[in-house]
Amino acid sequence: MPANVPRDVDLLIEARWILPMSDGLPTLENHAIAVHDGRLLGPWPQAESALHVRPERVVRLEHHALLPGLINAHNHAGMSLMRGFADDLPLMTWLNQHIWPAESAYVTHEFVADGTRLACAEMLRGGTTTFADMYLSPEAVAEVVAPLGMRVQLCTPLIDFPTPWAPDFTTGLMKTDALRDQLAGYPRISLALGPHAPYTVGDASLDRLLETQHHLGLPIQMHVHETADEVERGMAQDGKRPLRRLFDAGLLGPHFQAVHMTQIDDSDLEILCETKTRVIHCPQSNLKLASGFCPVARLLDNDIAVALGTDGAASNNDLDMFDEMKCAALLAKGVSGDAAALPAMAALAMATREGARVLGMESHLGRLQEGFEADLIAVDLDKINSVPVHHPASAIVYAVNSQQVSHVWIGGEAHVVDGQLTSLDSDAIVAESQRYRDIMRHFPAQGDH
Amino acid sequence: MPANVPRDVDLLIEARWILPMSDGLPTLENHAIAVHDGRLLGPWPQAESALHVRPERVVRLEHHALLPGLINAHNHAGMSLMRGFADDLPLMTWLNQHIWPAESAYVTHEFVADGTRLACAEMLRGGTTTFADMYLSPEAVAEVVAPLGMRVQLCTPLIDFPTPWAPDFTTGLMKTDALRDQLAGYPRISLALGPHAPYTVGDASLDRLLETQHHLGLPIQMHVHETADEVERGMAQDGKRPLRRLFDAGLLGPHFQAVHMTQIDDSDLEILCETKTRVIHCPQSNLKLASGFCPVARLLDNDIAVALGTDGAASNNDLDMFDEMKCAALLAKGVSGDAAALPAMAALAMATREGARVLGMESHLGRLQEGFEADLIAVDLDKINSVPVHHPASAIVYAVNSQQVSHVWIGGEAHVVDGQLTSLDSDAIVAESQRYRDIMRHFPAQGDH
Repeated sequence: MPANVPRDVDLLIEARWILPMSDGLPTLENHAIAVHDGRLLGPWPQAESALHVRPERVVRLEHHALLPGLINAHNHAGMSLMRGFADDLPLMTWLNQHIWPAESAYVTHEFVADGTRLACAEMLRGGTTTFADMYLSPEAVAEVVAPLGMRVQLCTPLIDFPTPWAPDFTTGLMKTDALRDQLAGYPRISLALGPHAPYTVGDASLDRLLETQHHLGLPIQMHVHETADEVERGMAQDGKRPLRRLFDAGLLGPHFQAVHMTQIDDSDLEILCETKTRVIHCPQSNLKLASGFCPVARLLDNDIAVALGTDGAASNNDLDMFDEMKCAALLAKGVSGDAAALPAMAALAMATREGARVLGMESHLGRLQEGFEADLIAVDLDKINSVPVHHPASAIVYAVNSQQVSHVWIGGEAHVVDGQLTSLDSDAIVAESQRYRDIMRHFPAQGDH
Repeated sequence: MPANVPRDVDLLIEARWILPMSDGLPTLENHAIAVHDGRLLGPWPQAESALHVRPERVVRLEHHALLPGLINAHNHAGMSLMRGFADDLPLMTWLNQHIWPAESAYVTHEFVADGTRLACAEMLRGGTTTFADMYLSPEAVAEVVAPLGMRVQLCTPLIDFPTPWAPDFTTGLMKTDALRDQLAGYPRISLALGPHAPYTVGDASLDRLLETQHHLGLPIQMHVHETADEVERGMAQDGKRPLRRLFDAGLLGPHFQAVHMTQIDDSDLEILCETKTRVIHCPQSNLKLASGFCPVARLLDNDIAVALGTDGAASNNDLDMFDEMKCAALLAKGVSGDAAALPAMAALAMATREGARVLGMESHLGRLQEGFEADLIAVDLDKINSVPVHHPASAIVYAVNSQQVSHVWIGGEAHVVDGQLTSLDSDAIVAESQRYRDIMRHFPAQGDH
């Protein structure tokens, strides 16, 4: 086809601003981008798009910013039904007296499916198109996500004690292998190994994990250095910091996604740099559980890839990536004592391009660039809480709230149109979720607070 | 009137939950509260309200929480037009190269009025009914707020150098006196003395401030101990910490509202306790400008009254008190290392009852209690980001976003109905504000970022 013949495409989106999130590309004004067969073409200045494409449909977004779909790199979606179930408690009280007993009492395949549906509705409405999930029933998550068409990295729950999913660590590894085959036909669902944390996975299990990782070639996502207490206990038990233990076990590398990392000393930093291990930062969860502060500015200064996650709704208590971007950008300044740390555009990169990099999807996801997946969102900036728009990236990170997301596409398919969720029934999900309030309200530990 | 004859009232509001925010009163389920002549009656169980009142109108809120209107205790409303104008910069670069030159170039009476109108629209839409303002033209703020009917504490800008408002500190004090007379007929507008900060107000001015405070009996609101640098410079110049200098000048007391207070040592704490000086906490601004961390949990443990403020939109960048409550509750946990610090109900109290206390309005504002001002807001909790509602206060602080505010009343007058701002024209304000984007885009320091 000669270059001067416009190509037939599914959709053309014209936007006031486009933030490609590609290295070196600035924010574009009055540009357009096209979608065909789930992939992107362009962007071009609006006046030139007719030279390139002949679209079946056109969407005009006159006061909106178009950006890549947001990537929530750490979630426990099923826990959305435990949102606000127990708050303002020290971590071990929260886990031992509330979350774990409630999980024993209530968490079934159906609970996880219902919680995941609620989480997906909230994520989509708020502009999240891809998430990584780690919870007790990955099959239940897949059941919800596969027909919906969201992108997900499912992390299988691997831990040294019996769970509803697997009686032991080795069985969990075998089930991961089986699940991989079952999910082969779902290109938007990828699989990862999800060992819980260094303190719940012994050395023998780490060895088996390494074998399986070599065999299956899957990423690993693990909670690492969530608290100072974890590091101290690791030192006492193993004579080394948990990250060093994982390094010595041969597990670290660009395929390893270390979640939280609030404790990073010089030796940890050296290990992260040397192995190109990825970090997933969950600022609101770390604050809420008083876990510590991840030194994000220092990680970025050392070229470590950092993604952003909300963690589960039980420790946040929402799955709002706009909230999370703002919190990350503000907290990085407070923690580093430098108001120039983590500027708006860097926070936005963590939630898009860098999120894709951490999940190993950077070749085709996280940027608005020709050939990339057509996962994109539009944000209406013409609202009283975000005008005047002196700089779109600043408005998006520091002023916008997630309800300003007007459109969401995944692989070119619309999920939110004019602020309305079209791929799920919000009202039905709200009603279904409130049913769990009644089911769970007589749980022994629930006082009237 | 005998107790068993129901009283005619303007309005009855029936709500799924009512959070009275009165000491000792729990969250009420299925109660109603009445409004008459701008004041509250009740609350009672819904089934009993007919025994007490015969309402002209009834509003039924079946899945909403009703709470006192939020109080934003520190704002520079006119600066909303500089929202996102300059971000991610060290404090002195931000002030010297961006904010102050822009103020010189653009800030007029009209600019302040337009900025204040934008700020009021955003605050009302997000459930804020009362705010304290400190900016260059209090008359312009009064012009907007008086006909609108919001409640405001106007702090006059007092500083040791010429401003568009006053050529010197003493003239500012005289203008404050005159403004007090002009505002006598506006019961919702109160006046306070607003000396800028210890480092911009010399000893002679502090003496005159004290005289005027004694003469006029007004509260004082001042930025104090915003940064460690301020304290160090104060020590170097005066041989004592700035708070001690204000104490020695005789200025502190329950009428003194100290904004920021990120630096508090034992001697500061003793002074705050002894004088019952009030503190206004602005967590998002403190983070964004890397100013430091106010030890809120420690202040509350010492029975110091703490209110919450957004600060101006140029350092936040929104005026969203839900955002601010969540940030305050999370940050207090992170800073104190205690996940039980500043629980949801305490954060909500800071934004309501304690806000009223800090502004000296606690006798009639900040609670849903018989005889109090009918400033109240309803929040629709039946949304995908806040269900299931295991505990309403948790949902409000940790999961709700400000767009869930469905109704706002001030003195019984409706400003937001079914999520729509009714007392201001949002679309016109958005268009007017965007006009400033074009006016200010050629400002010399504005790069393409």
